[in-house]
Amino acid sequence: MKSLRIGIAGLGVVGSGVLDILVNHLERIERAGANLCVTGISARDQAKDRGVTHGPIDWYADPIELAVCDKIDVFVELIGGPEGVARHAVTAALESGKHVVTANKALLAKHGLELATLAEGAELSLCYEAAVAAGVPVIRSLRSGASACRINKLTAMLNGTCNYILSQMTHAGVSYEDALREAQQLGFAEADPSLDVGGDDAAQKLVILAMIAFDSTVEYGSFPVLGIENLTSNDIAAAGKLGYRIKLVAVAERNDDGYELRVHPALVDKHHSLAKADGADNYLIINADPLGQVSLAGPGAGQGATAAAIVADLIALSRGTGGPVFNTAAENLVTAKMLPSKTRPARFFLRLTLKDVPGAIAGISETLAEHGISIDSLIQPSVMATGDNSTNHDAMVVLATHVTTEAEMIQAANEIRQKPFALGEPSLIRIEDFS
Amino acid sequence: MKSLRIGIAGLGVVGSGVLDILVNHLERIERAGANLCVTGISARDQAKDRGVTHGPIDWYADPIELAVCDKIDVFVELIGGPEGVARHAVTAALESGKHVVTANKALLAKHGLELATLAEGAELSLCYEAAVAAGVPVIRSLRSGASACRINKLTAMLNGTCNYILSQMTHAGVSYEDALREAQQLGFAEADPSLDVGGDDAAQKLVILAMIAFDSTVEYGSFPVLGIENLTSNDIAAAGKLGYRIKLVAVAERNDDGYELRVHPALVDKHHSLAKADGADNYLIINADPLGQVSLAGPGAGQGATAAAIVADLIALSRGTGGPVFNTAAENLVTAKMLPSKTRPARFFLRLTLKDVPGAIAGISETLAEHGISIDSLIQPSVMATGDNSTNHDAMVVLATHVTTEAEMIQAANEIRQKPFALGEPSLIRIEDFS
Repeated sequence: MKSLRIGIAGLGVVGSGVLDILVNHLERIERAGANLCVTGISARDQAKDRGVTHGPIDWYADPIELAVCDKIDVFVELIGGPEGVARHAVTAALESGKHVVTANKALLAKHGLELATLAEGAELSLCYEAAVAAGVPVIRSLRSGASACRINKLTAMLNGTCNYILSQMTHAGVSYEDALREAQQLGFAEADPSLDVGGDDAAQKLVILAMIAFDSTVEYGSFPVLGIENLTSNDIAAAGKLGYRIKLVAVAERNDDGYELRVHPALVDKHHSLAKADGADNYLIINADPLGQVSLAGPGAGQGATAAAIVADLIALSRGTGGPVFNTAAENLVTAKMLPSKTRPARFFLRLTLKDVPGAIAGISETLAEHGISIDSLIQPSVMATGDNSTNHDAMVVLATHVTTEAEMIQAANEIRQKPFALGEPSLIRIEDFS
Repeated sequence: MKSLRIGIAGLGVVGSGVLDILVNHLERIERAGANLCVTGISARDQAKDRGVTHGPIDWYADPIELAVCDKIDVFVELIGGPEGVARHAVTAALESGKHVVTANKALLAKHGLELATLAEGAELSLCYEAAVAAGVPVIRSLRSGASACRINKLTAMLNGTCNYILSQMTHAGVSYEDALREAQQLGFAEADPSLDVGGDDAAQKLVILAMIAFDSTVEYGSFPVLGIENLTSNDIAAAGKLGYRIKLVAVAERNDDGYELRVHPALVDKHHSLAKADGADNYLIINADPLGQVSLAGPGAGQGATAAAIVADLIALSRGTGGPVFNTAAENLVTAKMLPSKTRPARFFLRLTLKDVPGAIAGISETLAEHGISIDSLIQPSVMATGDNSTNHDAMVVLATHVTTEAEMIQAANEIRQKPFALGEPSLIRIEDFS
C-alpha cells in the first residue's frame, strides 16, 4: 500500500503525542491496514526535549514551507488560533493539494466555510475529530453515524477546564479561584484561561457541531455565550440543596422557524448522567429522527485522547474516507437563522441575599407573580444554614421556578434587586431540563 | 455522482424503516452528498402492507437472486440468523462483487472471519454498524475512532430486552414473567425470547466488538454466557438495598496472557451511569491507550435507530469509506487465547435464605473465611424486612464480598447450601466494579 506522508506543524503536548503514536506505536497503525509516515515537522524550538525522538525527520522552521512542500500528502495543523500562521498554513496546504487534519476549533468556527469550500473544490479531506471533545468520537458520530438523520437537538458539555473547576467546587468545596489554579497546575487550563472560563472555547466547538447537524453555517458571535467566572461557592451549594449540579452547557436546537444556540452555566438534575460527568470530561447528547437519543462521554482534553483522535483521522484518510467536510457540501450550507433564547420557555434558579426582615419572601413571591412566574421549590435561610459555609447564609434564599422566559426573569430579578430588603446582586442561572 | 444501487432483502420492522428513509427522506441522503437508489427488494410476502410504498421497485421472490443480480451495487441483508438463506445470500452477494450491509449479529459472530476474508479479497465493503447497539455508533467508534489505540477493556450492556426487563423489575417492581410479557407486547422481545434472556444475543455482539478491539477471532462458545432467566425480584430488591442495580453485562478484557470474555447478570453501583441506562438502552465503555475511557449510550433496538445505522453505512459506502472489516485485515486476525474468568479476581453478591436460628450468620461468615473470602457488607433479615414484599423476607441474608474468585465463591456457596440452617438455593451474582 502506498504510504501517506505526513507533515506535523506544532509540537506542543498534542503534537508530541501524535508523534509518539506515529513513531513508537506503528504496529497499531499497521494492524489497522494503514501506512503512515511522518516526513516533516515544524515547531518553534528544534532543540526542545519532547520525550520522543524525531531526529531523522526533516525539520522546517517555517510551517508554511512544510505545508506547501512536495514531500507530504497530509498537513497536520496543531499550531492553534483562528488567524495568523495556523490559518495561512492550512490554506496554503489545501491550495497546494494537501489533505489537512487539525485540532483547531477556533480556526474552524471562524473560517470553516471558507476552508471546507477550498477542500471540497480540490477534492481534499479536511478532518477535525480532535477539534471537539478530543478522543470522544463526536464528529464521526454526527458526520457519519447520524448522517441519515434529522438532528433536532445537541446538548453538550464541551470544555474540560470549566467542568474540572465546577467539579472541584462541587465535590471538594474549593473556591473558583483555587479550582482554576488547580486546573492550571494540572495543565487543563491555559495560563490565560479566559477562552475556557469565558465560554468561548465551548461556543467555538458548538459552532462546528451545529454546522454538521443543521446543514448551515453559524456565525460565531450570533448567539449568547456566558462563562463560569461569576459563579460562587454559594451558587454551587444552593443548587445542590435543590437537587442540581451546575455545569457549563452548550445547546444547539432546531426549531420550526430557526435555530437556538447558547452557552452558559446551567443547573442539571444531579441524577442525570451529564451531571455526573466530572473532571475534565466532555459530554454530548444527540437527539435525532429516527435515531432517538444517543449520548457520548469521555476525556475532552489531554495529550493521549487528542492525539488518538488525530491519528484516527489519519487512518481514516489513508482508508479513503470521504464526504463533505461538514456532512453537507460547503456550497449547500445555508446561514442558520438564529432565534433569541431570551423569549423561549425555560426554568430558572434564583439565589438572593436578603435582609432578615418579615415579608421579604412574600415580596419576592409577589414580584415573580407579577411577571407570571411561579415557584417550583424554595429554600429559606434557616434551612440553607445547615452545612453551608458561606458567611451570609442567614440571609440567603434560593428558588427554582416553573417554566417562564429569561426576559421575564431578568425583569423580575431587577425589580427584586431594588426592593428595600434586597442585598447585593441576585444570581440567576438557567435550569437545563431533559424531557 | 454515480448512484449507488441498493437491494434490500428482508422487509420486517427494520427493512421497512430503511426503505422509509431511502424513499421518503431522500433529502437527508442528498444533503450528505450521497446518491442512493433502491433498485430491488425481496421479502416473504409481496402483498403485505409495510406502511411504505415500494411499488415501482423490482421485486425478487428469492433473496439470493437479488444478491447476485446485476442491478445492484450493495446488498442489504436484513433476513437474520447465522445460517441458511442469510448466510447464502451474503456469501453470494460478495462472490458476485456486491458490497454488503447487514444487521445480522448471529451471522457475523459465527462466520465473520470467513465473510471478512471474502470481502477483503474482493476489495468489497462489509458494513454492520446496525448489528451491535443499533443506532449507537459503537462499531464506527471502535473501527475508526479508536483505530490508533490499544483497546484494553470493553464493558457493555448490549441487549435491550434484558435491560427493559431488569429496569421494569427494579423500578416498577414487576416480576420477571410480567416484565418479559411487557417487553414482548412492546416489540422488544421475540415471541421466543431465549436468545435475548439467555445472554446469547449479547454474547454474539460481544464477539463482534472483541474481534475489532483485539485483532483476533473469538470463537462463539469459548467463554461463559449466563442469562437473566433465574433472577428473582428478591435478588433485585436485595441488590438495591446494598446500593446496586442488576444489569446484564458483557465484558471483554485484554490481559498480559490472553483475553477474558463473559456475559452475565452483574451488580453495578447504582450511581454509575451504566446502572442508570434503563429501558431498551444499550451502553458501551471503551478503555483504551492513549484514549482513556469513552462511553456511548442510546437505543440498542427499534426500527428508527437500527434503520438509521443501516443508512449511515450506505452513506459511508457511497463516500468510499474503506478499511478492513474488523479494523485488522482478516488474514492478520489471530485466534484469541481465552482466560478462565472463574479464577480472576472479582467481588460477589450472595443472597441466602436461612432458618431464623442462632449462629446462622456466624456459620456463613466462617465458611466464607475458610475460603479466604471476607465480607464487605451484609444485611440481616430484620433490616431486609423493611419495604420488602417477598414472602420469606424474615429468613433472608444478603451480602457483598471483598475481592475473591468465582471458583472460591461457588465452593463456599455449595458448602453453605448444605448447612442445616440453609433453605433453598443461594443466589450468587458477580459485582462489576469500575476502577
